[in-house]
Amino acid sequence: MSGAGAHRAAARRAVDLDELAERLKSRAPRAVGRAISVLEAGGERQAELVRRVYGATGRARLIGVTGPPGAGKSTLVDRLAGAIRKRGQTVGILCVDPTSPFSGGALLGDRIRMQSLATDPGVFIRSMATRGAMGGLARATRDAADLLDAAGFDWVLVETVGVGQDEVDVVASVDTVLVVAVPGMGDDIQAIKAGIMEIADVFVLNKADRDGADRTYRDLALVLSLAEEMTEATWLPPIVKTVAARSEGIEELLDAIAKHHAWLSEGDRLAARRRSQLGLRVETILKERVLAAARAEAGFEREVARGFAAHEDPYRLAEELFEGVVRAEAARTEA
Amino acid sequence: MSGAGAHRAAARRAVDLDELAERLKSRAPRAVGRAISVLEAGGERQAELVRRVYGATGRARLIGVTGPPGAGKSTLVDRLAGAIRKRGQTVGILCVDPTSPFSGGALLGDRIRMQSLATDPGVFIRSMATRGAMGGLARATRDAADLLDAAGFDWVLVETVGVGQDEVDVVASVDTVLVVAVPGMGDDIQAIKAGIMEIADVFVLNKADRDGADRTYRDLALVLSLAEEMTEATWLPPIVKTVAARSEGIEELLDAIAKHHAWLSEGDRLAARRRSQLGLRVETILKERVLAAARAEAGFEREVARGFAAHEDPYRLAEELFEGVVRAEAARTEA
Repeated sequence: MSGAGAHRAAARRAVDLDELAERLKSRAPRAVGRAISVLEAGGERQAELVRRVYGATGRARLIGVTGPPGAGKSTLVDRLAGAIRKRGQTVGILCVDPTSPFSGGALLGDRIRMQSLATDPGVFIRSMATRGAMGGLARATRDAADLLDAAGFDWVLVETVGVGQDEVDVVASVDTVLVVAVPGMGDDIQAIKAGIMEIADVFVLNKADRDGADRTYRDLALVLSLAEEMTEATWLPPIVKTVAARSEGIEELLDAIAKHHAWLSEGDRLAARRRSQLGLRVETILKERVLAAARAEAGFEREVARGFAAHEDPYRLAEELFEGVVRAEAARTEA
Repeated sequence: MSGAGAHRAAARRAVDLDELAERLKSRAPRAVGRAISVLEAGGERQAELVRRVYGATGRARLIGVTGPPGAGKSTLVDRLAGAIRKRGQTVGILCVDPTSPFSGGALLGDRIRMQSLATDPGVFIRSMATRGAMGGLARATRDAADLLDAAGFDWVLVETVGVGQDEVDVVASVDTVLVVAVPGMGDDIQAIKAGIMEIADVFVLNKADRDGADRTYRDLALVLSLAEEMTEATWLPPIVKTVAARSEGIEELLDAIAKHHAWLSEGDRLAARRRSQLGLRVETILKERVLAAARAEAGFEREVARGFAAHEDPYRLAEELFEGVVRAEAARTEA
């Protein structure tokens, strides 16, 4: 493409994004879906779109839902959304499966979402998928939450599968994190204890009508009491029993979320949390920025191939690439 | 500390690292343990130490072992190590728990390692822990494998808990990845299918004497056959049945590992794999390099606080920080 052609194409894309951002903020049908697709495709347009809508963000309540496979998270999210709708508020749902870049589209397909939600314009449901790395998925999901926020949704529910670090990353950027457990998890309680305890704001013991619910409740309470000593947390995550499939405990769960929000809203807590989350987002973007520069301006692939052939150590290679990026970017700024 | 004092301290640390690297390469007792502690502490010294020993790496066989909690991975690793020792070869074992920054030290403590291994100088066992982030743990573990390699260990076994992306990152840098399953995993087969399938070189069906072993074997074989179509892999991961607690199937597993190594050694495969792994290591180091520069030279925390107060979007903040890093680094290079 010629310089002028590239310039025109860039201008056209910029106009498209301006228009899309305006349609999103004015809550036009299908604007959110199109906008999220822009995020998923990544690249410059992802950044440009977020920058255009960011001024309209900060109003929605962001809730993360995580827990092991089979805990009934999607049913729980459906019922939460239903209860939120009954209160006359709107809700966006983002479903994230960081363990598989392939299943993004399938996550919705293999579950039965509430029929009433699927046809309700006050509800937006989307499975997140990206072509890039895991980090890209967490970032795109957080950006998508911003889009829903800017589009005026009162609540954004982010649902993940599993309880690994990716899920932690995905839900780390919300106001309230729900960790869903089920009776008879056995060893999985250990997994929750190890990885998720630190980020849980509310525990949900779902399928609480099953055998072993009392024991799992006691296990959770024990783990929580230990965690409390360890971290000196001032917020002790409550444990809420639910039977999502029968819509039991959903109002109690919303109450617990409201209590957490009230606690967060005291003093500087919510601001401090969101400031720290902004820092993590900036970290992620900065890291991907240097990598993109290393590829585009410092011959990343070529240098790795050369370094490999020469048995050069990875730290030396990284430093050389970093210096190459600095030289190229400094020259570009001067030009 | 004065400039001269800092200079002397830096020189002394450099001498320490020179000495440590030499002692490591000459296989002095306790050198490996001390060297890994240097890695875990992170910072400049981690890079400096790896750079000093890297020339002596590339000879060891690197094996990763991952799978869900309760699959019997540590017993399996112990028996593998025992079988390797019977062949007169040496083995280093690194145990990694990415789900908890706290449990690094506890991982060994709550398991009973084979007494014979613990007192055998041909075996080195270490739980990995870092003070930093998850990415830091994967990086320190890969660096520790280099140290063991440079110290002349014939094999390095990297054992993780869980099957999340962190585990994938931790074991992604080995020659052969073993994924351990157990009968009756139920939904967990799905988890394996989603996240781990792509990186498994050998499947181990451990506790294969239990009820449901045949069904889990069939499930795994089915998943494998689907994956084969999907990825057009030329290496079809075999499924090896073991009962690690009774040392059954261990020789067959070593045979499967040897077959995979023979396959890798054909043509450019092993080189291509290690080159790609080097690229991933360089990526990680480069990302952490820019973040360190943003903190040290571009006022990361201050800028995030300012940007948060001004409701600046994270992409703009990241770009400003990146430009700040480039300016500072370019000025430093010129000076």
